[in-house]
Amino acid sequence: MSINVAVIGPGGVGKAFLSQLAQYNKRSDNTYKLVLLARSKVAAYTDDLQEIAFDSWQSTLDKAIKPADLTAMLATLKTSKVPVILVDNTSNEAIAARYGEILDLGIHIATPNKKGFSSDLQAFKDTQRKAKGRGLCFHESSVGAGLPILSTLKDLVETGDTICKIEGIFSGTLSYLFNTFSPASAIDALKQGDDVGLPKFSQVVQVAKDSGFTEPDPRDDLNGLDVARKLTILSRLSGLDIASPTSFPVQSLIPEALESCESGDAFLKGLPDHDDAYGKQRAEAAQNDSVLRFVGSIEMATQQVSVALKAFPKTSAFAGLKGSDNVVAFYTERYGGLEGNPLIVQGAGAGGDVTAMGVLADVLKIGAIVQGRPGPGQ
Amino acid sequence: MSINVAVIGPGGVGKAFLSQLAQYNKRSDNTYKLVLLARSKVAAYTDDLQEIAFDSWQSTLDKAIKPADLTAMLATLKTSKVPVILVDNTSNEAIAARYGEILDLGIHIATPNKKGFSSDLQAFKDTQRKAKGRGLCFHESSVGAGLPILSTLKDLVETGDTICKIEGIFSGTLSYLFNTFSPASAIDALKQGDDVGLPKFSQVVQVAKDSGFTEPDPRDDLNGLDVARKLTILSRLSGLDIASPTSFPVQSLIPEALESCESGDAFLKGLPDHDDAYGKQRAEAAQNDSVLRFVGSIEMATQQVSVALKAFPKTSAFAGLKGSDNVVAFYTERYGGLEGNPLIVQGAGAGGDVTAMGVLADVLKIGAIVQGRPGPGQ
Repeated sequence: MSINVAVIGPGGVGKAFLSQLAQYNKRSDNTYKLVLLARSKVAAYTDDLQEIAFDSWQSTLDKAIKPADLTAMLATLKTSKVPVILVDNTSNEAIAARYGEILDLGIHIATPNKKGFSSDLQAFKDTQRKAKGRGLCFHESSVGAGLPILSTLKDLVETGDTICKIEGIFSGTLSYLFNTFSPASAIDALKQGDDVGLPKFSQVVQVAKDSGFTEPDPRDDLNGLDVARKLTILSRLSGLDIASPTSFPVQSLIPEALESCESGDAFLKGLPDHDDAYGKQRAEAAQNDSVLRFVGSIEMATQQVSVALKAFPKTSAFAGLKGSDNVVAFYTERYGGLEGNPLIVQGAGAGGDVTAMGVLADVLKIGAIVQGRPGPGQ
Repeated sequence: MSINVAVIGPGGVGKAFLSQLAQYNKRSDNTYKLVLLARSKVAAYTDDLQEIAFDSWQSTLDKAIKPADLTAMLATLKTSKVPVILVDNTSNEAIAARYGEILDLGIHIATPNKKGFSSDLQAFKDTQRKAKGRGLCFHESSVGAGLPILSTLKDLVETGDTICKIEGIFSGTLSYLFNTFSPASAIDALKQGDDVGLPKFSQVVQVAKDSGFTEPDPRDDLNGLDVARKLTILSRLSGLDIASPTSFPVQSLIPEALESCESGDAFLKGLPDHDDAYGKQRAEAAQNDSVLRFVGSIEMATQQVSVALKAFPKTSAFAGLKGSDNVVAFYTERYGGLEGNPLIVQGAGAGGDVTAMGVLADVLKIGAIVQGRPGPGQ
């Protein structure tokens, strides 16, 4: 049985996804047929869902003239004689708002788009309920890109383990900033009051921006909202009714005086005035043999969800983090509870290839389910 | 649709599995029906596969009089009108040798039994091929218990990532022995030549045995064969044709002079004579700011698979391991290759509850696939 795939969003993740899916098809039996491609304004597809060749998808999309109207696209996809997987590689809120409707049509969804799972609580619940009906919905890459974070949480919850706490570093950018600003290797010098040779916070942010590690305006990383969205998803999948990513304490790393700067450049110009305050926090942490890390935490017993800059002892897994890696620690009853050694997943949590990999793995899982298997004697 | 479950092996893992499955059924819609229970000599089942109540499985099995004859059990399971999952909670080689035949019958398999995947290469390949046919075969818990190790490797390989290296600590017992014998916190003292207060190797083994952390004869852990079986599985799933767990270098931690001891007790009595040799290795590692860990490694470029005691720098994830945790690092092209930061999974890799959890997660994955989903318009 073949499976039709519709891809919205041919950006960095979308390009990597199409390349990986084309390669997968070559290795296997060409199960997956690309039948629709869309970007913000235009879409390429035919009314009878003719296959689009993977090796010429770019030129097919360049020549597309149909409007990228989701309602019209869904009406056509609904007529498919074989299962359909919609791959939403955008971060578009309007598409995400229609996941429930899409699932009701029996169209499956694989997506790294956080919006559908971290915005309105009722919409999330509606999507979850409908994903148990005709359409399946997988979104591994919405947290930690291709790292097995959501699938692990799902296995823990579904098999009846009790989640006690989830704690992690969920932003590649903020991981990099604090691994560089407050490395474990600097603790000894800092304890002697020596910060010569260590970068100032504003310098680390500037280098990260110049290297393309931050959003165009670094405040879009430093406000913590991206981490808050991921925490919202993890909390909800753990069973907490979190109303929105702004309904719990999220520490912003933007100094109050710089919140109203008109541009990212103006912000970067003002940031050095606040280096002393960041340096003081780093020095205080070092006095306790600790480093600073920007973490998200979910405490199930008290239902407390928070995103904040915290100190972690140099022996902790968080202190040893490298580069822009993400890390998540699941403290569960079966893994020894709050005092036990947690189940840890760690690695690159951003980037086109690893994000696309998580989306493709979701597509293959949906593929396995829709293809089913006969029972004995059949 | 209901799914029939047949459970062989009601030991520690089997008991935990039955308890978890019973709880799952209560939380969901009683999808899973227990229809067969077997231990080494007897089996409880009826010719028409009547349901066995979860809350009285023990007394049902106690009263069982049918012989535990696999051929007869399979003949009956084959008549099931609904899908059947055989859960092999044993470490039995004879049952594992028949996985191919079981899959051919359209009976699905979920198991923590390493034997079916780490013994004869042709049997492994046969099982893998047949698991793409009518019957599905999942064995997450055969490596690292409930930790998402095999599912992660499968996602990496299936989505077309290139595995460069896999390295890890795959034995809870050997993890505990060396985390205790050679902790990172002892490096500074050892560099000064001071090992007062540090345990000798024989003491660590004795305490582990007394605490029930080792096999009855500790040599069954120290010979490295259990780790070699797990490495064999990981290598084969990565694409290497590994003939058997004894076809690559496996370092035994049993001093040659003690290999022929008649009993585990005689071995433990002789072990202190070798403490100096172990102590010397620990001191040498410390001179390089490193600790000793018993690791399995798979180098894909050179196809070299090995199990050995090696030194790791104190800043590595392996040096920071606690208790009896397992850890595995996947170095892949998408995660930066041999020089990049690997994808790491870490946590308890043994114990009835977490092993059973991995088996139940496999059962639920098989359940999702056999239940399938209708396509659009159906």
